Amino acid sequence: MIAIPAFATVSEDLERVELKMREALSSNNEYLAQVLVYLLQSGGKRLRPALALLSARFRTAETTKAVALAAAVELLHTATLVHDDLIDNSLLRRGNVTLNARWNSGATVLAGDYMFAWAASLAAETENVRVISIFAQTLVTICRGELNQLFGPTWQDQTKDDYYARIYNKTASLFASATEAGAVLCGLPEPQVQSLRAYGKNLGMAFQIVDDLLDFVGDARELGKPVGSDLRQGIVTLPTMHYLRRYPDDTALARVLTRQETEEAAIVEVVSRIAGSDATSLAFEEARSLARDAKEALMVLPDHASRRAMLELADYVVERRM
Amino acid sequence: MIAIPAFATVSEDLERVELKMREALSSNNEYLAQVLVYLLQSGGKRLRPALALLSARFRTAETTKAVALAAAVELLHTATLVHDDLIDNSLLRRGNVTLNARWNSGATVLAGDYMFAWAASLAAETENVRVISIFAQTLVTICRGELNQLFGPTWQDQTKDDYYARIYNKTASLFASATEAGAVLCGLPEPQVQSLRAYGKNLGMAFQIVDDLLDFVGDARELGKPVGSDLRQGIVTLPTMHYLRRYPDDTALARVLTRQETEEAAIVEVVSRIAGSDATSLAFEEARSLARDAKEALMVLPDHASRRAMLELADYVVERRM
Repeated sequence: MIAIPAFATVSEDLERVELKMREALSSNNEYLAQVLVYLLQSGGKRLRPALALLSARFRTAETTKAVALAAAVELLHTATLVHDDLIDNSLLRRGNVTLNARWNSGATVLAGDYMFAWAASLAAETENVRVISIFAQTLVTICRGELNQLFGPTWQDQTKDDYYARIYNKTASLFASATEAGAVLCGLPEPQVQSLRAYGKNLGMAFQIVDDLLDFVGDARELGKPVGSDLRQGIVTLPTMHYLRRYPDDTALARVLTRQETEEAAIVEVVSRIAGSDATSLAFEEARSLARDAKEALMVLPDHASRRAMLELADYVVERRM
Repeated sequence: MIAIPAFATVSEDLERVELKMREALSSNNEYLAQVLVYLLQSGGKRLRPALALLSARFRTAETTKAVALAAAVELLHTATLVHDDLIDNSLLRRGNVTLNARWNSGATVLAGDYMFAWAASLAAETENVRVISIFAQTLVTICRGELNQLFGPTWQDQTKDDYYARIYNKTASLFASATEAGAVLCGLPEPQVQSLRAYGKNLGMAFQIVDDLLDFVGDARELGKPVGSDLRQGIVTLPTMHYLRRYPDDTALARVLTRQETEEAAIVEVVSRIAGSDATSLAFEEARSLARDAKEALMVLPDHASRRAMLELADYVVERRM
């Protein structure tokens, strides 16, 4: 787990979330236990569970329920990663070999399903129908987003609206649900619930844009995956979109996106060209603007340790380098 | 949809379930709409939703909630079939080409995930925390069963307890949850909830044993899949278990189970040998006994159209030929 200073206020509860997620391991199936330990150890920033916990802290929510919600959110996220890797045939994720590269696809499908099931079961532990509904609806949104990515417009036809819709479905929807559900759980009044949802959504959008940027300007070792992995999969993200607007006739880029280019040096050259262009600063500016919107949404909330942590987190999300 | 006389009492609600399941189609994704129409048209007996509806009828449950529960149960079932086919690499299901054989595996994973998500969302519509928990727990059980099948004992080491545990996980758990959740939804007292759960469980066990039997003695055309498909996948079901107890040294059978035998005629010969042995009547007797247990469990319930339909259904389940 990667320590983020803003999480200090919920660090004890985050430990409980780790334990809660590991309960899913109490399976008599040795393979499954192995797989789950492997997946949960791979770590990640635990941003989503922290958001749920921070939101649930504005008033006093029952700790066990807040922890169950946070664990549900993170397990759902992990489950989608497992199936994503299968769908994309990715071989590296967070610097580790993906499940799909180590086990066969049938086992990977099942491990993901099992985590979905366990996540649904944890969500039910909150005993809050609205929280459970938010959770289920988010899963629908994430799947719909994945399907659109698989069957939606090609890179040539993709608009900026398509991109924004895609990163909402893929990432921001779960961030928004984590903060909304946490707020519902501790019984905040509806306007504050909606503000926390808006915070989560904007933070998630900023987070994903930065993720897409790091695929160009980040360090492959720190990221735990090769640079330009989106391009290699024919996926146009915001930096590429800005670049294409300026240089619509870059045929080398088109060759990479259509997977006609297989030479590593040529791919890296295209990645560097986008990384060095003003397309990245334009994309960074959009992320910063969304992070500002996220902070802005918190203004209706009372001054509170959670709010301070969330303000800090909005800065972290755009400043991070991994 | 295959009409079953015992369902007459809930036929209108079953129509509502069909419509409810089709709401999942209200997607702007054309591929997904195609896939779901295809999957839902493939039909099936709609046994599970009928069980939920019948159970919810003992007292007056809100129709919209009972229908949501029934649709959730059937969508969950359909989702598991979609992923199962991927895992088993089956090419035919209910006489139709499977999704996996028509589309690529990534799309198949997603279509299944989307149905899981939609099912969870429908379960949440019942607004009943216990019903939602039953639902989530069942999904955990089904996945655990699948994983055990993939990584559990080999056919040589499989005991009858293993077989019973497997068919509970795979089939009876969802039958039991459908009846239990229906009973909870209409507010039956706990002993009657438990009786309906026991009915569902025993009915599901009987149903699966008969399914496994039909794989030997059924008609390939009516079943919509080749006979002996379990054997061909190296899966030992109850008839084979009885047969092996009597003829432990049938090397031709061992060759089929280890997939060393590829000659169609030789496989069909082994299937016929088991079908013609007393192994099948022993297995049928177990199914009949479970169906009797199912009926027995209904004795504490008041005389009611639902109870009469359920008694009839217990007979249907063991007498059916497809």
